[in-house]
Amino acid sequence: MTIKVLGYAAKSSTTPLAPLQIERRVTRPDDVEIEILYCGVCHSDLHQARNDWGGSVYPVVPGHEIIGRVSNVGSAVSRFKIGDSVGVGCMVDSCRNCSACKQGLEQYCEQFPTYTYNGTDRHDGMPTYGGYSEKIIVSDAFVVKIPDGLDPKGAAPLLCAGITTWSPLAHWKIGKGNKVAVIGLGGLGHMAIKFAKALGAEVTLFTRTKGKEEDAKRLGADRVVFSTNIEQMSRVTGQFDLIIDTVPSIHDLNPYLPTLSLNGTIVLVGYLGGLEPVLNTVPLIMGRKSVAGSVIGGIAETQEMLDFCGKHGITSDVEVIPIQKINEAYERMLESDVKYRFVIDIASLKESRV
Amino acid sequence: MTIKVLGYAAKSSTTPLAPLQIERRVTRPDDVEIEILYCGVCHSDLHQARNDWGGSVYPVVPGHEIIGRVSNVGSAVSRFKIGDSVGVGCMVDSCRNCSACKQGLEQYCEQFPTYTYNGTDRHDGMPTYGGYSEKIIVSDAFVVKIPDGLDPKGAAPLLCAGITTWSPLAHWKIGKGNKVAVIGLGGLGHMAIKFAKALGAEVTLFTRTKGKEEDAKRLGADRVVFSTNIEQMSRVTGQFDLIIDTVPSIHDLNPYLPTLSLNGTIVLVGYLGGLEPVLNTVPLIMGRKSVAGSVIGGIAETQEMLDFCGKHGITSDVEVIPIQKINEAYERMLESDVKYRFVIDIASLKESRV
Ligand SMILES: [Zn+2]
Ligand SMILES: [Zn+2]
Ligand SMILES: [Zn+2]
Ligand SMILES: [Zn+2]
Repeated sequence: MTIKVLGYAAKSSTTPLAPLQIERRVTRPDDVEIEILYCGVCHSDLHQARNDWGGSVYPVVPGHEIIGRVSNVGSAVSRFKIGDSVGVGCMVDSCRNCSACKQGLEQYCEQFPTYTYNGTDRHDGMPTYGGYSEKIIVSDAFVVKIPDGLDPKGAAPLLCAGITTWSPLAHWKIGKGNKVAVIGLGGLGHMAIKFAKALGAEVTLFTRTKGKEEDAKRLGADRVVFSTNIEQMSRVTGQFDLIIDTVPSIHDLNPYLPTLSLNGTIVLVGYLGGLEPVLNTVPLIMGRKSVAGSVIGGIAETQEMLDFCGKHGITSDVEVIPIQKINEAYERMLESDVKYRFVIDIASLKESRV
Repeated sequence: MTIKVLGYAAKSSTTPLAPLQIERRVTRPDDVEIEILYCGVCHSDLHQARNDWGGSVYPVVPGHEIIGRVSNVGSAVSRFKIGDSVGVGCMVDSCRNCSACKQGLEQYCEQFPTYTYNGTDRHDGMPTYGGYSEKIIVSDAFVVKIPDGLDPKGAAPLLCAGITTWSPLAHWKIGKGNKVAVIGLGGLGHMAIKFAKALGAEVTLFTRTKGKEEDAKRLGADRVVFSTNIEQMSRVTGQFDLIIDTVPSIHDLNPYLPTLSLNGTIVLVGYLGGLEPVLNTVPLIMGRKSVAGSVIGGIAETQEMLDFCGKHGITSDVEVIPIQKINEAYERMLESDVKYRFVIDIASLKESRV
């Protein structure tokens, strides 16, 4: 038994996204049915729609920054009721039983989490479809609550861009007295700046692009350093307890290592691949520094981040688009022409109904 | 005012080590004068004698694994008295004032520590000469106590090989319930195995060389894995909280990254240079793993290690040589023909007195 839901899908790696009727399961006892209001647009969406990483199974309905309202709940659900404002991020399930899952680190599930789209449901084997659609049905354990008063449009990107930068800040225990740097000012970077600042840290933005100073400071950066300016770089030698590197493409880490403090860590959250040019171990060894990686965050941690955002009034800077503009938005994202995240107003989808 | 001391020195990068009269300062108020009994032979000794890293200033009197007996103390010294069994490691001074020094992390002193040899004294500008000599004069803050009952020959290598592997075990809080792997079975590796075992961890040796199993197990390893055997490597996927990488030459880290557990760290203690082939970030990001570095250890930490060794009866496996065999020992070290550390019996030096 399935229900039909209207979505926006890529039917192949070379076709633009277009309206498509998809099938979703009927609500299971532990499920929450969500009427989607907004969905953020992540770089992963376009990469998976276009099969840039391989492994895409079509149709692909992207979207893992989902904000909506509960429209139905299964019989075993007690934490949510109809009308609740809720979110769904990059995962809709995991094994729930491995050591990682038991620690609330579902993103590192030893059996791999079930991703919100381009995944396969662990129970019925159906493909998972993301938030570019009217409705989604998700087990209550993977649904988070959106605090009252948080703008739902700006909250959507918290579910991926937000948690991806929040998680390392939390894991490396950043707070007052710490110095944090962020490499790159995009969807991830602008959230990293907001969070680090709100956590009490002194925040520096590393960028290669002129003209970002004003915006960086508005977002909370105390300082902007041009990573291509050797003098500016040498002035921040030994400064940072944590550097959050949001750059999604291959880049040289070596200029940043000397800017880490003793025991400092540079954590990669954006780039999957080989570190070229080769990493020099000297600054690592001579300052007990680390190069680490981190991916999204756990469900409980996502809720903590959202609660923090509710308390501090933190949302993403967004540009709201109707879903009919998604293909255009992908092109603009490839040129970094967005401040700082596109969010789809899912109400627009009904205009694509035939 | 100086005193004359007989040492063994390299007069240039190409001459073998030979007897040489060197000058040392007279004891300052905070100084301890030590009659040297044994001195371990570290790979750094041969590299600096031969100027392999550049920057050697001749004559070079190597040796930073020094065990001796206090023969005199300055007027301000209260922690040591004549006859005490003491040790000196890789450092004889530091700025004592920076944030690192104040944390007891003199090895990471922001002004750089004064190294035991091939350094320059911070007060009188004299060159520092190491432990291949009859006597050394060192500020009391950089002298450690050798616990009663610890064999002085086997204790010498604790001052460099020992603390270099102890420090990461302590920093990453290894104990009962942890799984530790050690890459390479030499001077550093054999100490890492002994320490990790004594701390209660389950210990694995990674090696490329057959025939080391028996010795590794005698030293405390629970398991030996051949790093070139893909099946053996895949059997230890996701196992290790900490990998101590003691390999001194360029080598590929990528095969080891998947063997780290979630949140695991591989710490480099032996290799200064570029990480070739390039490091793949995927296992780092997909398991919040870290690549880190570490160098020797602080003075207080060195004392803690020695006290632990006293309690657990831990020393290095050594081959004692007269100083006249040092050049031959260097050649054998280059072929890894030592189990596991040469230690010079400094009493032999008097036979080189003319
Ligand atoms: Zn995403
Ligand atoms: Zn799991
Ligand atoms: Zn050494
Ligand atoms: Zn210092």
